[in-house]
Formats: sequence, C-alpha cells, structure tokens
Amino acid sequence: MALITDKKVVVLVGGVGGAKLALGLQQTIAPENLTIIVNTADDFWHYGLRICPDIDTVLYTLSGRVNPQFGWGVADDSTITLDSLRTLGEDPWFTLGDKDMATHLLRTHMLRQGHTLTEIVAHLATQMNIQPNILPMTDAEVATVVNTVEYGKLDFQEYFVKHRWQPTLKDLSFEGIENAMLSTQAQAALADADMILFGPSNPWLSIAPILAVNGMRSALLARPVPRVAVTPIIAGKAIKGPAAKIMGELGYEVSAQTVADYYGDMINGFVYDQRDTPLKSHGLKTVAFDTMMKTSEDKRRLTNNILAWLDKLEAI
Amino acid sequence: MALITDKKVVVLVGGVGGAKLALGLQQTIAPENLTIIVNTADDFWHYGLRICPDIDTVLYTLSGRVNPQFGWGVADDSTITLDSLRTLGEDPWFTLGDKDMATHLLRTHMLRQGHTLTEIVAHLATQMNIQPNILPMTDAEVATVVNTVEYGKLDFQEYFVKHRWQPTLKDLSFEGIENAMLSTQAQAALADADMILFGPSNPWLSIAPILAVNGMRSALLARPVPRVAVTPIIAGKAIKGPAAKIMGELGYEVSAQTVADYYGDMINGFVYDQRDTPLKSHGLKTVAFDTMMKTSEDKRRLTNNILAWLDKLEAI
Repeated sequence: MALITDKKVVVLVGGVGGAKLALGLQQTIAPENLTIIVNTADDFWHYGLRICPDIDTVLYTLSGRVNPQFGWGVADDSTITLDSLRTLGEDPWFTLGDKDMATHLLRTHMLRQGHTLTEIVAHLATQMNIQPNILPMTDAEVATVVNTVEYGKLDFQEYFVKHRWQPTLKDLSFEGIENAMLSTQAQAALADADMILFGPSNPWLSIAPILAVNGMRSALLARPVPRVAVTPIIAGKAIKGPAAKIMGELGYEVSAQTVADYYGDMINGFVYDQRDTPLKSHGLKTVAFDTMMKTSEDKRRLTNNILAWLDKLEAI
Repeated sequence: MALITDKKVVVLVGGVGGAKLALGLQQTIAPENLTIIVNTADDFWHYGLRICPDIDTVLYTLSGRVNPQFGWGVADDSTITLDSLRTLGEDPWFTLGDKDMATHLLRTHMLRQGHTLTEIVAHLATQMNIQPNILPMTDAEVATVVNTVEYGKLDFQEYFVKHRWQPTLKDLSFEGIENAMLSTQAQAALADADMILFGPSNPWLSIAPILAVNGMRSALLARPVPRVAVTPIIAGKAIKGPAAKIMGELGYEVSAQTVADYYGDMINGFVYDQRDTPLKSHGLKTVAFDTMMKTSEDKRRLTNNILAWLDKLEAI
C-alpha cells in the first residue's frame, strides 16, 4: 500500500491515548508534515514547578523515553526527591520522577525567563530529538476545574490523580479559557493542514479544552479537508481512563455515537471500532477499524488504515 | 568544667564554617537558648527554585544530614535530575542533589503560597528534628553582586561556584539590602541574648550582609553583652574558601587583626587562633584557642572554651 505521505496532518491529542496515535503518525508521515496540538488544561503548578502532563506524555512517547508500563513518565525512573519530600512531612500525591523532574525544572526556568510554552515545548522536543511539530493548544494558562458531587470543585489533578477520578462529575469548566488564544503556530498548521485528526483522547477532558481555545473552532470549520475523530470508546467502554464514567455521569449513552454527536460539526469523519455497530452517520463519513493500540505494530496499522482511508475519501 | 548553659546565645553565620560552630553550640547549649541567624545574600533562583545555600548548610549540618566530605549538601545523595538536565542540553553548574532537591521544592512551594522565609526555615527545621532556632537574616530577597576585574559584575553563585571564586574582586554590593528588614523574630532573639557570637564565616561575603540588614547594627549595639567574633583566619590563611584571597584583593593585610578591625564596634570580643600572634586589642577582650574544627570533638571543645571564657568575662 503506497501512502501519500506528503499530506500535511494535524492531530489534536490529550495524554496517553492521543500520544499513541501521534507515535503511529510519527512512524508513518514525514516529520515536517506532522503537527501535534496538545491539551494543556491539565497543566498545573506543583512545588513551584509548572507540570504539563499531556505535553510530557507526548514528548516522552515520541522520544522513546516513556515508561512502557504506564504510558506516561520516563522509563527506569526513580523517586528519590519524592521520597525525600515525604521525610519532610509532605504527601506528594502526584508522581515526579527524578529524570522527569529535569523536564519540569527546565520548563519552569524558561517560563520564568519569559519564554512562551510553545517555545519551551519546541526546545524540549529538539533536545529530545523529536522531529514532528508539537504545539501546546495555547500559551495561556488554562485550568480544568471538575465540579464533583462529593467534594465540590476540584483542581483537575486532584480529581484525576489524588482521587483517581472516582468522584462523581457534575460539570466541568476551563478556568482562564476566555484569555486563551490559539497560537500563530497552531493557526498556521491548521490553515495548511490536508487532514485533521482528533485523537482517541477523552472528549470532555482532553479534546474539549482544545476546541474551547479562542479561534480553534473557526480555524477547524474554515478547513474543507477531512476532520476525523478516532473513537476513545470501544463497545461501550473507554479504552483507558474515565471517558465512559464521565459520559454516564453527564447523562449520555456510553457509545462512539455519543462522541461523534458531541463533536458535531467540528468533524466530518469518524473512525469507530470494528467491534462496534455502525454509526448513524448524519452525513459523517465513517469507517470501522481495529482501534486498539497495544503494540507498535497496532499503532502503525491503525495509522496506515486511517491515512489510506482518508486518501481514498479525498480522491472521491 | 560546669558551663552555664542557661545563657541565651545568638550566633551569626554563613555556610560551612559557621554551621560547624552552630553544631558545636547545639551540642553544648539547651536548644531553646540557641538562635542561629543565617546569611541569605547567597540565595538565588535556579531552574525556578529558590536556593538558600547557607540556610541549607546549617539545616543539613544540625540535622546530621550533611555530606561530611564537602560540609554542604546531603550525604549519600545522587544527581539523577542534574544528569537528566544535561541530556536536555543544559549545563547546570550548581549542584542540586536529588535528596537536596526536596528542600528546594518544598521551600519554593511555600514561598509561592505566601509564607515568609522565616516560617519556611522553621518548618524545615521542625521536619528535620532540629531544636535550636534557625532564622534567616531577613525575609526580603537580597543578592550579593560581585564586581570582578575579569568579568565585571557577577551574581554571587556565578562568582563562587561557576568561577570557583577565582576572578579578582573589585567590590561587593548587596542588591535589595535597602528593603531588607531584620525580622521580629531576629530582633527578639537579639534583644534577649546574653551572648552574641560572630561565626568563623567570611566577614565580607557572609557576615557583612547580615550586618547590613536594616536594624541589625542598632540591635547589636543596643546589647551590653559579649559580642564576640571567632576568627576565620589562622596564621594568615583562610580556613576554607576565599576569605584570605578577598582580603588581599580589597587591599587588607590577611590577618585576624584585619577581621577584628573590620567588625569595629559591632564586637567587643574576639577569639583568635592560638597559632597566631596576639591581637592589638583596641579595648577588645581577646582570647586565643585552637579554632580549627575538623572533628565533632573539635567543635565541642572550641564551643566549650568560648562559652567558659565568656562566662568568666561576664563574671568580671
């Protein structure tokens, strides 16, 4: 199968699931043609450091540094500093590995020097020998706040890590989103894209904040190209994380269909899993593949399938 | 020898040398009667973290955590984060151990939360099971700037660590000192002190900034008690670090006499080394002891000697 790899692809991603698709794309597409726009609404300040969990997951995944067991963090990392914090009476619920720590120190240092997050991510990617273009969704600070039945409002990492996404979600808000502008780099990448993918990330926690950045929706709608979401739901279950749980708590049916409907006119195509029943398309182009990505080969195969399908779609 | 250990002692210190005397005092005096006021003009921001080298040296020394080989840093520490920073293209010339890092993270976190450095040091000391009262010289940010012949103005740690105090010193300034107030805690400790010691720290780099804090000189002069400096110079040489080199560069004779003269009316007593010739006292009470502190026993012996002498002085 000869892929047309000179097409410019932009993919919107959150953490682990999106990073896997990005890795598949990195292995398939010429690096200069691949742009990965990453959710930053999970970012937070922790012990004086700026932590960007989704960006780091993408950086570590694409550079081959990622801990293969978790899908996040650095492989073979230790927690000497974290253990020392415990001896100082702290209860550091968010894991900061000692190797991982270097990323946070350098990022915080560069932020304090006045660099934008876009510049910092580009620098980190270069230092990690990553060739595709990784962009934060915005340079502004945005913070997901999770309103829960049990605890009221929680900062995202408190909800996600400290409480292991067990509290019942009432609603979500993205603090600071009103000041978050799409960066010129992200605008340019979208304006130039031949295909736009929505990674199999959590629609409400990872993709929604990206779509909520000022200028994002109009930049997407302005592109008469395939804008295709990859399902994070297979046979009524989330591949990973709280997507299914959240859908239920928000009153939705837990299905790929719900995700497709949620994205609405932002997308014009949808990749669902072959284990699922066909979607009611409502004018969407849809296709079923095996969307599980456990091995490197899975990632490559899914990416190849999607690109071949999009290529065929475009030719129609 | 029965020591009167119910006397309240305040000691002014910089880093390694002062910490050694503080350790000797900790082993001799009831903890509630010992206050250690520490230089903070060496403090700096590094990779987004607030680093307080002298305070940490005192904390690590008094808690038994200190690296015995260097006299600073934590024993048996590693540099995994620092090594990872190097893989990200950085050249981190200031050593940050992985255990040590926890102190910087917690301090930075508490500063960002709005705590004063005095509160933070008290918290760290408590967590490290240190009983004497450790106080930063001020809660304000002060930064020693070293004007050098070779490089012009250098930040202190650049001069001291990066350039290993080899550049030739022209003059020194303490940026921010005009806004640095003596804390109420330091004021109270001084107002209540029965004896005030100046540690064998670098007079120009460590003790001078403490004396330059607003309110410090008048608080000292107001106390009609022994105010006694311990020499950092033995037989024309510094025990450690650049004290002798700096004295030469500033045009002084390298001697205990110069140190005594430099402190002027801030002190009324001076402990010089028994290897040296007696001081011209100019009204100062002087005494010669073996002031080298290599072993624990050395520290205890010197402390005992000083306290016994002061006790006798007071009785006169």
